[in-house]
Amino acid sequence: MEANTQTAGQIILTGARTLLRGAGQVMFQNSAITGLFFLAGIFWGSYECHVPEVAWGAVVGLAASTLAGYMVGLPDKDGADGLWGFNGILVGCAFPTFLANTWLMWISLIFFAMATTWVRQGFNNVIAPYKTNSYTFPFVFLTWVFLLAARMLGSIDPSAMGEPELVQTAASAYHLDTSFPSLIVYWLKGVSQVFLVNSWVTGILFLVGLALCSRWAAFYAALASAISLALAILYKADPSDIASGLYGFSPVLTGIALGCTFFAVNWKTCLWAIAGIAATFFVQVAMDVLMEPWGIATLTGPFCVATWLFVLPQFKFSAGQD
Amino acid sequence: MEANTQTAGQIILTGARTLLRGAGQVMFQNSAITGLFFLAGIFWGSYECHVPEVAWGAVVGLAASTLAGYMVGLPDKDGADGLWGFNGILVGCAFPTFLANTWLMWISLIFFAMATTWVRQGFNNVIAPYKTNSYTFPFVFLTWVFLLAARMLGSIDPSAMGEPELVQTAASAYHLDTSFPSLIVYWLKGVSQVFLVNSWVTGILFLVGLALCSRWAAFYAALASAISLALAILYKADPSDIASGLYGFSPVLTGIALGCTFFAVNWKTCLWAIAGIAATFFVQVAMDVLMEPWGIATLTGPFCVATWLFVLPQFKFSAGQD
Amino acid sequence: MEANTQTAGQIILTGARTLLRGAGQVMFQNSAITGLFFLAGIFWGSYECHVPEVAWGAVVGLAASTLAGYMVGLPDKDGADGLWGFNGILVGCAFPTFLANTWLMWISLIFFAMATTWVRQGFNNVIAPYKTNSYTFPFVFLTWVFLLAARMLGSIDPSAMGEPELVQTAASAYHLDTSFPSLIVYWLKGVSQVFLVNSWVTGILFLVGLALCSRWAAFYAALASAISLALAILYKADPSDIASGLYGFSPVLTGIALGCTFFAVNWKTCLWAIAGIAATFFVQVAMDVLMEPWGIATLTGPFCVATWLFVLPQFKFSAGQD
Repeated sequence: MEANTQTAGQIILTGARTLLRGAGQVMFQNSAITGLFFLAGIFWGSYECHVPEVAWGAVVGLAASTLAGYMVGLPDKDGADGLWGFNGILVGCAFPTFLANTWLMWISLIFFAMATTWVRQGFNNVIAPYKTNSYTFPFVFLTWVFLLAARMLGSIDPSAMGEPELVQTAASAYHLDTSFPSLIVYWLKGVSQVFLVNSWVTGILFLVGLALCSRWAAFYAALASAISLALAILYKADPSDIASGLYGFSPVLTGIALGCTFFAVNWKTCLWAIAGIAATFFVQVAMDVLMEPWGIATLTGPFCVATWLFVLPQFKFSAGQD
Repeated sequence: MEANTQTAGQIILTGARTLLRGAGQVMFQNSAITGLFFLAGIFWGSYECHVPEVAWGAVVGLAASTLAGYMVGLPDKDGADGLWGFNGILVGCAFPTFLANTWLMWISLIFFAMATTWVRQGFNNVIAPYKTNSYTFPFVFLTWVFLLAARMLGSIDPSAMGEPELVQTAASAYHLDTSFPSLIVYWLKGVSQVFLVNSWVTGILFLVGLALCSRWAAFYAALASAISLALAILYKADPSDIASGLYGFSPVLTGIALGCTFFAVNWKTCLWAIAGIAATFFVQVAMDVLMEPWGIATLTGPFCVATWLFVLPQFKFSAGQD
Repeated sequence: MEANTQTAGQIILTGARTLLRGAGQVMFQNSAITGLFFLAGIFWGSYECHVPEVAWGAVVGLAASTLAGYMVGLPDKDGADGLWGFNGILVGCAFPTFLANTWLMWISLIFFAMATTWVRQGFNNVIAPYKTNSYTFPFVFLTWVFLLAARMLGSIDPSAMGEPELVQTAASAYHLDTSFPSLIVYWLKGVSQVFLVNSWVTGILFLVGLALCSRWAAFYAALASAISLALAILYKADPSDIASGLYGFSPVLTGIALGCTFFAVNWKTCLWAIAGIAATFFVQVAMDVLMEPWGIATLTGPFCVATWLFVLPQFKFSAGQD
């Protein structure tokens, strides 16, 4: 940490910035102020929904995964850019969302949050030759492992998860409130669900936080949530999932990734991002179906899969070129 | 397209050749005449089975995926060799086979057929270091995504798909008509099912089309369908699937791939291809079981998996050696 | 084989050493004497459990996979080091454990054991750029293929496998005998299950065989079985699986791999190995749940997955550093 000559105050400030950037990096923003808005959104939403343990889980997961980076001697620069924290904060949101609040859950949360930082290094090594990285997949993979295991571990209570069942073809009776105010709420919740939060206020805080670092990121997040909402209504996806914003969060991440992170902003990139956002919607529904026999959530898996599909071709979209 | 100085007639001819080669490449044949026989077989079979939408789906999928290659500026040479069309034509056969004939199904078919060409570039980038390519996996992967999603999308009707269920161990009562004429029909249908067509006449058209470009390809297709049929009878695989040729189509592709496409033709290669054909049969049955909880088809997934298994070791089988 | 000038006796000795090393390599020991103890343990345990076909399957699988290496002309050095045999011997243990004793099962066992040696070459090619190898995954993958297929093949009887079912959350009534002698038995069976053997005597034979080649390997095997047993009790994993040692065998392999095979022995490595052993336990439970809809075993899959997770980051743990 090269902290030898720093004062205690400097160390605390540096640590806080590192942690907040970890929160910001969930949506690709290397910015402490953005991370602060994200954390504020998480606290607001989890207290509003009476699950404060989700917010505290986020803080614990963020700290544990960041510490894990220092423990194995990874390059400090990565830590300072928040690259150790973004998987851990998501583990911290997910565990208390799906599992009962016991001390063994918290021990497990800390171990799995730390493991994301280590595992990420391996995943990145595998993907590096293809000029991209593992995104939030370390969080997704390790959380899947623990949620699956929780089904058979008597000391972990997964009663907040869905029931395992065979897929049922969509029912014929279909009702969704499509009044304009409701649509706005679904659209904002599509953004808030990136951190597993079900609150339109949180959606606004996230969009503001994004805009403070990158207006394009805020634009693509808003666009992606809108497109996926429109597709969900057109294709008649599950109405209660639509109302909770569950078709929006993965497309939001894909939109930011393709629209203004891995490609330069221009109109060709925009068309490509729109195609990727649509693909993410279908991958989301497919993975929802795929996971029904175990009753576990897709997390941000659909974002990872769809974004890889659209980044791996390594197309160059330069504005000048035909 | 460098078409500036071409006459309209030349453009049409070039376009037709590109499309037909796309059909031919499904079985690794860079030949418009072979593709013509394949298309003829598809039309015959789908009209015979009263599903003409499958044939028209093939044409639409072929055109959409080929156009998609031009849209992103991929090398024209690939297009001219039919490498953009072969995944798209299979998407075009599969969607109307498993999903009801609605306008939204057609919109989706076009988007997913186009996506195969883009996604293929990414898959090929991933596999290129291992000196092979993604075969028909872009079709397989993207069609799985949409068929899975269709289970939960109210606007898409998957009633032509099987029911999701837990695997049941094979019943003890077993009946299969093994008269010689029936065996010939099963054997030919094993070839026709490469394009999801259930017709022995189509099987003949496909074999003739292959022989016009490569006699070895026709030989290995015929051999592979026969071997997998024999194995299916020996191991008592599902009798109705045997009668529909459903154990044949993936081994047919593996046979052509290993016997005369990725290895030089000689007797060592022949033994290797036979081992690969047998492996494909087992992978086919395993994947049938794997997918029962969702009731979706394996498509040509078993061919891709088994052929990778036998190509990735990068053995050299030269006739002179040892 | 460069055997031209060898006497018959020499050839037999060389062959025996090659085969025994193949047995030893299952736990990373390039030692014929270790392999001899492993084979002795397999014979003892399978006769004790009245499944002698498991022991003979091990011998047949070992021989078939080793011959398969010579057949395709792989480098003799690999064969002499036992690298062709360790997947085949596991196929030979697994097939008679899960499938009824028929001639078609034996034919299939020989073909699949041979295929492990070929497929391993391909898997290793894929993983080589990441500086590790495929471990026992060729055995795991190919055995999964055949066990899945067996569900639908009338000629293969999978009645010794579990029933396919949807996951059920752990029952509230929980009983496990945790007297000290019982714990010792579970702990030793955790080691014996590496070769699918359910016998504490075999566990001792395996530990002795390990110690004769590497005391650290024996130490880490013992440590790993103990840690995973403690975690299984703490997290209340399935009591009958605990009593059969089924949470121990994958961590045992991870422990040897991380503790003294892929990293130099020191205290940092020891902490890393402990983290990897714990991760293997959770991956084991998760994969148990994942496979319930098909009722097939995880085999050593959890070891492969967890060890890759902890090797791929390519951390260097040197005792002197930091």
